[in-house]
Amino acid sequence: MPKIEISTEFCLRVRYAETDQMGFVYYGRFAEYFEVGRVEWIRALGLTYHELETKHRIWMPVMSMQVRYLRPARYDQELRIRTSLRALPHQDISFYSEIFNEKNELLCAATIKLCFLDSLTGKRVPCPGFLQERISHAIETAHIQ
Amino acid sequence: MPKIEISTEFCLRVRYAETDQMGFVYYGRFAEYFEVGRVEWIRALGLTYHELETKHRIWMPVMSMQVRYLRPARYDQELRIRTSLRALPHQDISFYSEIFNEKNELLCAATIKLCFLDSLTGKRVPCPGFLQERISHAIETAHIQ
Amino acid sequence: MPKIEISTEFCLRVRYAETDQMGFVYYGRFAEYFEVGRVEWIRALGLTYHELETKHRIWMPVMSMQVRYLRPARYDQELRIRTSLRALPHQDISFYSEIFNEKNELLCAATIKLCFLDSLTGKRVPCPGFLQERISHAIETAHIQ
Amino acid sequence: MPKIEISTEFCLRVRYAETDQMGFVYYGRFAEYFEVGRVEWIRALGLTYHELETKHRIWMPVMSMQVRYLRPARYDQELRIRTSLRALPHQDISFYSEIFNEKNELLCAATIKLCFLDSLTGKRVPCPGFLQERISHAIETAHIQ
Repeated sequence: MPKIEISTEFCLRVRYAETDQMGFVYYGRFAEYFEVGRVEWIRALGLTYHELETKHRIWMPVMSMQVRYLRPARYDQELRIRTSLRALPHQDISFYSEIFNEKNELLCAATIKLCFLDSLTGKRVPCPGFLQERISHAIETAHIQ
Repeated sequence: MPKIEISTEFCLRVRYAETDQMGFVYYGRFAEYFEVGRVEWIRALGLTYHELETKHRIWMPVMSMQVRYLRPARYDQELRIRTSLRALPHQDISFYSEIFNEKNELLCAATIKLCFLDSLTGKRVPCPGFLQERISHAIETAHIQ
Repeated sequence: MPKIEISTEFCLRVRYAETDQMGFVYYGRFAEYFEVGRVEWIRALGLTYHELETKHRIWMPVMSMQVRYLRPARYDQELRIRTSLRALPHQDISFYSEIFNEKNELLCAATIKLCFLDSLTGKRVPCPGFLQERISHAIETAHIQ
Repeated sequence: MPKIEISTEFCLRVRYAETDQMGFVYYGRFAEYFEVGRVEWIRALGLTYHELETKHRIWMPVMSMQVRYLRPARYDQELRIRTSLRALPHQDISFYSEIFNEKNELLCAATIKLCFLDSLTGKRVPCPGFLQERISHAIETAHIQ
């Protein structure tokens, strides 16, 4: 089976609000950074998560998260979030997220699994067809490169 | 015109997440403390803000906030939030919030004005009658004491 | 080898600020709930995390976190956080955290590993002796019961 | 006395974490947006707030904040934060912040006053000379334009 990897990168700067009294970014705040990374990954497909919610009535709550914190992130650093998909989504979708500082050091790495809910019924649904198609298309066009 | 003041107090402990790298509670986090104070004020009337939203379809977004920060709040302190109503609500409702530390020093004081929205239409509505009645009742029963 | 489990429980109420537009508690906010649970677990030993930082110059940053989200937490629910230690700490310390709603349904479960830093040097140190002693004492006195 | 106004603009996109169950950005989260605006305003002077803290040992805690919320901010909107100084700082410094949505509608406006602390002693100090000079220089060079 061929390995796939569709990755995008997004940079953001650490806000003062995100630090704690150790002088590090609070460990729970990384969840927001991972979220921003996923949202920009979806935007790179030509969709928006906002559309998924408002037009397609899909919610994507998080089912599980594993995070390893390797080095602290600090105030005013410009962080680079690398978000990757390594398997085609079916019943759920898993993203692999890595956050790097300006010296290109890996600060933390996470695997986050989300499911798909019909927002009207609250019931689980499989990955919508149009999302699978966009992902397949992204893989194919990357092959051409 | 008689002066009214209906006050409640609620205590909470500062979380690590709420500190910043100065070692103080981040200035934006106090908005959450004020919110907790207001919610407990409403609960003391025998209502819940949750019911207002789910049963009465009322949303109460904040229209304005004035805060004076006098002393820093610090990690693990048990803070006391005093929430007061000083005028009967009509088109909007204003709360006066004060936060004290364990030595009874005033850390910050705020005035927060909220309006009432019909959550189905998103239109402004006046203060619901049942809320005015609860407030009037609270004033009267306090007179008896 | 004998199994140990030292557990404490702590309740908190979901704040409006903690919800997102799905109407659920945002997945990253649970990190704060786990933190509150750990802090109260330490307090139950007769110590405070605040003292660890200010008196003993120990910081305890999070090294890894695994969370499974089973059911959403919602606004104004009173959540019960159960925090357990299942192995004696040496180079690091791992807590197992579970969050339950008012119906006693498990909402999420997490394993969180923290290390010990000397806050003056920023270097890793093993679990301080006085903390190990408190834990051993807690296990012994629980045996007596 | 001549009127001054030194303004900068910075854009950011609303994160899912920043919404609440009304579907609006939580009112307390705007404090983070104002902070980002101030930090970028200082960067536009050729300084960084990070340097002020680490090199010059200056902390700038918030003394007061007045916010008017005119329209809700919503998920995934790209907001424009306009941050202005309208008076030279002496004992304290006041910023005027406005946040606009993509249709150029004003969502909220705030006045935020900060003071200067010597971070080693925790005592108040006046605005550092080098900061006043940078501001004066910014005003003069703007005159030339």
